[in-house]
Amino acid sequence: MVRQERAVRTREALIRSAAEVFHHEGFTAASLTLISSRAGVSNGALHFHFASKAVLADAVEHAAAGVLQTITGPGPGPGPGSGHGSGSGRGPGSGAGAGGRRDTSTLQRLVDATHELARRLQQDVVLRAGFELSGEAGRPARTDLRLRWHTWVTAMVDAAERRGELRESVAREGVVAAVVAVTVGLEVLGTRDEAWLSRRTVAQFWRLLLPALAPGPALGALEAHGSFPR
Amino acid sequence: MVRQERAVRTREALIRSAAEVFHHEGFTAASLTLISSRAGVSNGALHFHFASKAVLADAVEHAAAGVLQTITGPGPGPGPGSGHGSGSGRGPGSGAGAGGRRDTSTLQRLVDATHELARRLQQDVVLRAGFELSGEAGRPARTDLRLRWHTWVTAMVDAAERRGELRESVAREGVVAAVVAVTVGLEVLGTRDEAWLSRRTVAQFWRLLLPALAPGPALGALEAHGSFPR
Repeated sequence: MVRQERAVRTREALIRSAAEVFHHEGFTAASLTLISSRAGVSNGALHFHFASKAVLADAVEHAAAGVLQTITGPGPGPGPGSGHGSGSGRGPGSGAGAGGRRDTSTLQRLVDATHELARRLQQDVVLRAGFELSGEAGRPARTDLRLRWHTWVTAMVDAAERRGELRESVAREGVVAAVVAVTVGLEVLGTRDEAWLSRRTVAQFWRLLLPALAPGPALGALEAHGSFPR
Repeated sequence: MVRQERAVRTREALIRSAAEVFHHEGFTAASLTLISSRAGVSNGALHFHFASKAVLADAVEHAAAGVLQTITGPGPGPGPGSGHGSGSGRGPGSGAGAGGRRDTSTLQRLVDATHELARRLQQDVVLRAGFELSGEAGRPARTDLRLRWHTWVTAMVDAAERRGELRESVAREGVVAAVVAVTVGLEVLGTRDEAWLSRRTVAQFWRLLLPALAPGPALGALEAHGSFPR
């Protein structure tokens, strides 16, 4: 039991160490010796857990996908925002920053998730390396994080439209493309300069975009800087 | 003279070949032997022109920067769009797709440049590899193309504001961040799926953003899909 716990911890340490080395040197240049030594384990221990660097990269992506899932939740589903029928029916106090999501509109959840993604990309090297591996030349991503994010954003924008939260004139497809392109752009630019991932930068984007997306009455309740305290 | 011409051609062939190999395999994995053989020259000839892979990468970036310069022009400068004082004073026929830029507003020039950048990224592997090298982990970019693009976008948005082409409520800094993040995002996503670089996708973004940027009277003259025939 104790032994099993130790194995789990070693595995996690190796994933974190690999993420750091992939982030700083790229997948191709990353050395397994450096990864194991940064994790404080032997090369043999690394190979016991991961048969190859490719398998280790898959594990980093898989762990990052888990983090992404905690940021997004499973999707618009039957959860928050459903049952309203129309965005104009939202009650008072929605998006009030209480941290609860019960009354949060689908658009606000999308805004909040982009903020949370940007924040976690700054703090969590596993998430960052996972996204970077999605774009690595010459390496087909198994768990393409950018694709997963794209899929989730599409589902949210579809749900926002169904729930009457979008202006009628707005092309859903364009909203999805803009949100995905901006977030991937911020992720990539944030590698060299973290200011791209600041709450301020993300809020600036939404401040521009939200008036184009949301009908007048709903707009006032939407918070471009995220509906949560920080 | 003939000899010199041949040397110039060999150098160009090596830069193109390097761009292709960097694009497909990444800078770190790229093999000089593959680069020289794809260019149809010997390894010795490659080393005659470029002392190392890093020098070759610098040359690719430099060539890409030249392409970017043809897309953007030098900047808002004293050129097109100046002398209007206010965007509302634009004459008829501006942005009419005639290919001439004399009457084109600063915002329209920005829109057109993003379209042209997306189009060239699809067609020109040197430009694409140049941008990709800007984001390569573990390699400080000498000629950071994303930074150059950022600088140019900033100058254009500043000029648009000075010329009264932006709504008063719009935060310049937010516009710059949104345009740069979207274009870098499209560039990165376009590596795996070229649809991200299509005229349609770029136009969708501008169709969303332009109403937030331009005052009502100027908006009608702005063409989200670019003011040039294709």
